[in-house]
Amino acid sequence: MRTHPCGAITREQLDSTVTFCGWVHRRRDHGGVIFIDLRDHTGLVQVVFDPDRAETFAFAEEVRNEFVLRITGKVRLRPEGTVNPDMTTGEIEVLGYELEILNRAATPPFQLDDSNVSEENRLRYRYIDMRRPEMQERLRLRARVVRQLRHALEDDGFIEVETPMLTRATPEGARDYLVPSRNHPGEFYALPQSPQLFKQLLMMGGIDRYYQVARCFRDEDLRADRQPEFTQLDIEMSFIDEKTIMSTMENMMKVLFKDVLDVELGGGNDFPQMTYADAMNLYGSDKPDLRIPLVLTELSDLVEGVDFKVFAEPAKNPKGRVAGLRVPGGNKLSRKEIDGFTEFVGRYGAKGLAYIKCNDIAKGPEGLQSPIVKFFPAEVLAAIIERTGAQDGDLIFFGADKTSVVEAALGALRIEVAKKLDMVEDAWRPLWVVDFPMFEFDEREKRWHALHHPFTAPSAESIEEWQTQLDEDPGKVLSRAYDMVLNGSEVGGGSIRIHSSEMQQKALDVLGIDEQEATDKFGFLLEALKYGAPPHGGVAFGIDRLVMLMCGAESIRDVMAFPKTQSASCLLTNAPSPVSEQQMKDLHLRARARAVQPDA
Amino acid sequence: MRTHPCGAITREQLDSTVTFCGWVHRRRDHGGVIFIDLRDHTGLVQVVFDPDRAETFAFAEEVRNEFVLRITGKVRLRPEGTVNPDMTTGEIEVLGYELEILNRAATPPFQLDDSNVSEENRLRYRYIDMRRPEMQERLRLRARVVRQLRHALEDDGFIEVETPMLTRATPEGARDYLVPSRNHPGEFYALPQSPQLFKQLLMMGGIDRYYQVARCFRDEDLRADRQPEFTQLDIEMSFIDEKTIMSTMENMMKVLFKDVLDVELGGGNDFPQMTYADAMNLYGSDKPDLRIPLVLTELSDLVEGVDFKVFAEPAKNPKGRVAGLRVPGGNKLSRKEIDGFTEFVGRYGAKGLAYIKCNDIAKGPEGLQSPIVKFFPAEVLAAIIERTGAQDGDLIFFGADKTSVVEAALGALRIEVAKKLDMVEDAWRPLWVVDFPMFEFDEREKRWHALHHPFTAPSAESIEEWQTQLDEDPGKVLSRAYDMVLNGSEVGGGSIRIHSSEMQQKALDVLGIDEQEATDKFGFLLEALKYGAPPHGGVAFGIDRLVMLMCGAESIRDVMAFPKTQSASCLLTNAPSPVSEQQMKDLHLRARARAVQPDA
Repeated sequence: MRTHPCGAITREQLDSTVTFCGWVHRRRDHGGVIFIDLRDHTGLVQVVFDPDRAETFAFAEEVRNEFVLRITGKVRLRPEGTVNPDMTTGEIEVLGYELEILNRAATPPFQLDDSNVSEENRLRYRYIDMRRPEMQERLRLRARVVRQLRHALEDDGFIEVETPMLTRATPEGARDYLVPSRNHPGEFYALPQSPQLFKQLLMMGGIDRYYQVARCFRDEDLRADRQPEFTQLDIEMSFIDEKTIMSTMENMMKVLFKDVLDVELGGGNDFPQMTYADAMNLYGSDKPDLRIPLVLTELSDLVEGVDFKVFAEPAKNPKGRVAGLRVPGGNKLSRKEIDGFTEFVGRYGAKGLAYIKCNDIAKGPEGLQSPIVKFFPAEVLAAIIERTGAQDGDLIFFGADKTSVVEAALGALRIEVAKKLDMVEDAWRPLWVVDFPMFEFDEREKRWHALHHPFTAPSAESIEEWQTQLDEDPGKVLSRAYDMVLNGSEVGGGSIRIHSSEMQQKALDVLGIDEQEATDKFGFLLEALKYGAPPHGGVAFGIDRLVMLMCGAESIRDVMAFPKTQSASCLLTNAPSPVSEQQMKDLHLRARARAVQPDA
Repeated sequence: MRTHPCGAITREQLDSTVTFCGWVHRRRDHGGVIFIDLRDHTGLVQVVFDPDRAETFAFAEEVRNEFVLRITGKVRLRPEGTVNPDMTTGEIEVLGYELEILNRAATPPFQLDDSNVSEENRLRYRYIDMRRPEMQERLRLRARVVRQLRHALEDDGFIEVETPMLTRATPEGARDYLVPSRNHPGEFYALPQSPQLFKQLLMMGGIDRYYQVARCFRDEDLRADRQPEFTQLDIEMSFIDEKTIMSTMENMMKVLFKDVLDVELGGGNDFPQMTYADAMNLYGSDKPDLRIPLVLTELSDLVEGVDFKVFAEPAKNPKGRVAGLRVPGGNKLSRKEIDGFTEFVGRYGAKGLAYIKCNDIAKGPEGLQSPIVKFFPAEVLAAIIERTGAQDGDLIFFGADKTSVVEAALGALRIEVAKKLDMVEDAWRPLWVVDFPMFEFDEREKRWHALHHPFTAPSAESIEEWQTQLDEDPGKVLSRAYDMVLNGSEVGGGSIRIHSSEMQQKALDVLGIDEQEATDKFGFLLEALKYGAPPHGGVAFGIDRLVMLMCGAESIRDVMAFPKTQSASCLLTNAPSPVSEQQMKDLHLRARARAVQPDA
């Protein structure tokens, strides 16, 4: 049907006859001839129709944007002055001999080059949106990323194994999507939140090195950039420790970035490793963006003795913290900008945003401009200046509150200020975050939660050592989890797993999961662990987010072919949709009276 | 943790120290030393422990089958006479220096080399079953098949695009698995029966060449070898005709078979093509197994005049058929065997199974042994013998009934007899079946159904030509569908699709889908077709069945890591399972009173 895709017609085909197919991107009449830019997935080619060929010319007059054409013509050089160096086909044009209208098109709901189309319209007419070169590139980049990841893993001895989609509720904390069973009245399958337990079972089955590009599901209230279904590169290895898996994954990512973006990820070195404690202390985040040079400075010990209660109290409280964020050159921030940041940190629970502008440090307190300077003795101010390393022209922001609030607020402020002041390095800055706490205390439920998941191994080498740690403070027990962070996004995370049934039982105990519940939910895992489970561990990468980062898209919706809206609807197909009474009967279900209105 | 996998320790490591991990496959005490065969995914290696190293020996005494060990030792040649040429490691053994018990194992519920384990036990303890070399090989072969298919397609310019799992009911005829929505009370997603409409939308979006290894779902009553979820290699191309897609797919399969099985599929030639009509006439099946030399012979015209009503009536009926199946050498079949075949064809609706044994054809009717010979004039018998090509020693089976019954019964009998008489060639015999009828009449519902699906293009080139055909006889209208058949299994099927909205509307009309229903169900497709849909077509291959064929497994369950039973349960995780009242509330659902008992 075609000899060439549109974008491949170049000087090389000069004077030869080519046939190509595509969509009418633009049609213009100019000087008695008709110009058509025909578009396919490879690009555009310009075709000229002149009235000499009457029948063909008549067809050409008839076409409108987005008509689907098959054109045969002869390649010739464009007239001087009309060459377009930005196009692969920019040196040539095709003199059209034959034109076949393969399909007509109604006037599209939006122009492809209109950059102000609402996302609603883009999703409703995704098949038109997708014709835009930008969307084509993203979907193609995604395919290349996944392809490259597969190759790297396969070359490394991993095999892909498919795990079930219709499965049992997984214990990942989020809400499951459920699937009613027709054969088993009152019972439901769950769609997997991840293949976690299955991949561990595969290790027990001797698969040794597993991977899967796995669809995962979470029925959560969708925040800004979540989707009910997402894709995970899921990986598990047997007979390994952290070192092996981390270096394997690092290599995989290095090859990926080299191949797809021609970037030397890590600059030829191993990715740096940072403990969770350091990440929180210095960056206020467990996924620090290392492109930003700002860091938090611990100040609690300097201010615990001052009269200013707003600082002294959190400084003295073991669960509180006072920290500074030095902003080089931040002196130039206006009152209005600082007010904006104050409002910004308020979203993270901060009750205010103290600051000091360093006008002339040598002058002592006189040289500092701030509503709070008056509360501090000069030597405290000097110590703060010294420890933060502030220079004339800098500004120091302060956080003083519960540790979690200070870290969330200053951690977010760090990024916000850096963007504002254009301090984000144009680079790829990967790292590993390690030594995570195993549990975190849920203040509302008054119980311990697993920070990763209940199958993560503790750093303790024996159950006895672990018990001693637990007796001291469960909050200080470390796990063998690791996250790969890139430019402030967690792109992957995993852990060495528990492979002993006693240890697994104990982890469930600590989480307040009693034996009955443990048996109900994870009985098969606890049983499997008894029959010879190898030491194993793994990791999962969020493909959507990774691709989004790699192609600089703003939303994961832009790297998915058919994403859903925030209310989890598909605007194109109108899913979800009502079903018949008979279908409900088949599934042994009845609708409840509508207590709530649908939100869309 | 290890220097080598078990199966890689060979002569090459002679005299060097190696460390390896795995499961205890066998332990035996012999002549004061302990032999352990350690197993991992690559194979077995024999390790010898002698009492000189007391501590290690004590550990070795302690181990039982399926314990997980890490062993360090020195590679040495096996004593003469104990070399095992069937194992890659059969020339060597390892003298064990150190033994670490990585994990203990309870006595497994079955021995790995026990070939009589019930499938129930195999599925319940899949992680143990999977350690068996046979299951390892199957899962690894599957991974290799999928890998090779991906490579072939990617090298050919196809890109993988992921389509949604939470989607709208697809119109494939089978029952959908439904997923209740929390955000939209009373509404449901459907899990895809195939990505059919999405892949067509991708073509309209300009993706040009799409593929996906896609999970598909059908909530059907599970027959012998079906699974509620299965994997499909889904493919679609734009601007192509049958020729292009068929040759592309043929090449893909040839490369696959060459790479994975070292088989020249098609023997260097294009796959043969057979019309649906020929396939039914000659093989009684739309997926003929060409490894079997038997064919059906049309006899209706020869017997329509005889007095024997059992033959004459179906012969005269336009919807009836009389056919013969010559079985070379079939004379030797016993009465009992023939009775068995009679019962067999009964399952396909045949009311009996007439036959003639050709003892001595030259003698005329005298030389033929059969209860029915007496009903036929000698010249009819001679014509039957001649047309079937029967020789002395052969047997001819007859089918005389409705065409559909004759074809189903003789088609199945053909295979059954060939297996019994060992007439199935040991070969790979692919072919394309083409020229399918577009519609088939459903006698129960008294309406036309799409033989493939409602998006398949008719062979007619214009809507007018098509209308003329439809007016004559919808049953005779051909579609542009094609199936790839291999050794009697349909491994892939597809079609050129309708790309005009008028034609699509008309196809839905013929199927009795009124405008309202069409808009409700496929409104988005009909709309999309208006905005410039390219000519396109595609195909889908059933990965599970293909892999099953390639590795000679008996069931698709044997090529899936975690398959479900016939009642769609997972014996390992116990899915599906009851959910909490709160979960039901969240989904706006209530259980119906149990009208039926669960079937498991």
